[in-house]
Amino acid sequence: MKILIVGGTGTIGQAVVDELEPRHEMIIAGHSHGDIKVDMTDAQSIAAMFARTGHIDALIVTTGQVKFAKLAEMSAETYQFGLQHKLMGQVNLALAAINHLHDHGSITLTSGVLNHDPISMGSSASMVNGGIDGFVKAAAIEMPRGIRINSVSPTVVAESMDKYADFFRGFEPVAASRVALAYSKSVEGLLTGQVFKAGY
Amino acid sequence: MKILIVGGTGTIGQAVVDELEPRHEMIIAGHSHGDIKVDMTDAQSIAAMFARTGHIDALIVTTGQVKFAKLAEMSAETYQFGLQHKLMGQVNLALAAINHLHDHGSITLTSGVLNHDPISMGSSASMVNGGIDGFVKAAAIEMPRGIRINSVSPTVVAESMDKYADFFRGFEPVAASRVALAYSKSVEGLLTGQVFKAGY
Repeated sequence: MKILIVGGTGTIGQAVVDELEPRHEMIIAGHSHGDIKVDMTDAQSIAAMFARTGHIDALIVTTGQVKFAKLAEMSAETYQFGLQHKLMGQVNLALAAINHLHDHGSITLTSGVLNHDPISMGSSASMVNGGIDGFVKAAAIEMPRGIRINSVSPTVVAESMDKYADFFRGFEPVAASRVALAYSKSVEGLLTGQVFKAGY
Repeated sequence: MKILIVGGTGTIGQAVVDELEPRHEMIIAGHSHGDIKVDMTDAQSIAAMFARTGHIDALIVTTGQVKFAKLAEMSAETYQFGLQHKLMGQVNLALAAINHLHDHGSITLTSGVLNHDPISMGSSASMVNGGIDGFVKAAAIEMPRGIRINSVSPTVVAESMDKYADFFRGFEPVAASRVALAYSKSVEGLLTGQVFKAGY
C-alpha cells in the first residue's frame, strides 16, 4: 500500500513508520519535518500535499496540538486553539483525503486517553479527543467507495514520560511500538468506525 | 434551589422545568423566549444574564445547534458552526457560571446519543456530543468549591418524532419527561463528571 502519514516524524508517528515500512510505501508529512511540509489547519496547504502524493491507499494522522492549562485559566480562545488544530486539523485532512484515496482505502486519526481518564489541565484535550472519536464513528457510516475511518486513542507513551510524567502520575505508559500496532490494525484490517484504545 | 435553565422553553427544557418547578425556583433563559434572553455564543450576553440572575445553585443547558448534512456536503465551516454553538456555547455558559454558582452548586450540559449511535447526516452532532462529554469528564476534576458538572445524553425525544422520525428510523424514542429525570439526578444528586444516558 501507499500510505501517507501526517506527523510521521513524531514519537508515535516514527513508531508507526517503523511498523509499516517493511510492508508498505510510506510518505511522511509534517509541519516542519518529513518528505512533505503541511499545515493541517490550512486547506490550501493540504491540497498542495495531496497534489504531490497523488492517490494513496491510506492516510494516517499522528499529530495535532491542544493547550494544556488549568480549567480556571482556560478561555474560549484556548479551547478554540485545540478545536482548530488537533480536531479540525485532522478532520480537514480526513475530508480532503476522501478524494485522493483509492476505493477501499482508509483514514486513521489520533485521539487519546483523556476523554476516558482525565488529568489536571487536560480539559481541552478531553474535549478534542471526544470530538475526534465521535466524528470517526459517524463519518464511517457515510464514507463513499468502501473507504474506512477509525481513530487510535493512546494512553501516555513511554518515550514521552521524560516530558509528561508529572501530568500522568499513576498512568501506566505504553511503548510507542505497541501503540503502532493499533494503526496497523486500522490500516491493514477491515474494521471501520472504531476507536482503537492503545495501552489502556 | 435557585436553578437557571438555558433553553428552558424547548422540548426537553420544558420537561425539565415541569420536573423541577415543584421543588425549586426556576429561571428560564433562551435565545428568543423565557425570562431572560441570552446568546450563548456571546460572552457579553452571558455576562448580562448572570448579572440579572445573581448567584444560583444550578445551571442547566438544554439547547445548542449543529448543522445536519451529508458528510460529502460538510465543510470546515459547517463543522465550525456546531463547535461554536452547541459545544462552545455550552462551555462558555459553564465557565461563566462557575463565578456565579454557590459552593456545591452544579452545571448540567446536554450532549446526545449520536456519538454512540450515529445516523446519516449527523457527523457534526456526533463530533460535538463527544466534545461535550469529554469536556464534562475533565472539567469535573478541576471544579472549585465543590461545584459539580455532568452532561445528559438523550436519545431522540418522542415529542420531536414528527420532525425527526425520518432521521432516526429504528431508534426507540424517549418521552421528554423521562429525559428530565436525568437532569434531576444531575442537579439533585451528588455525582460529578458523569454522562447520564437518557433513554438508551
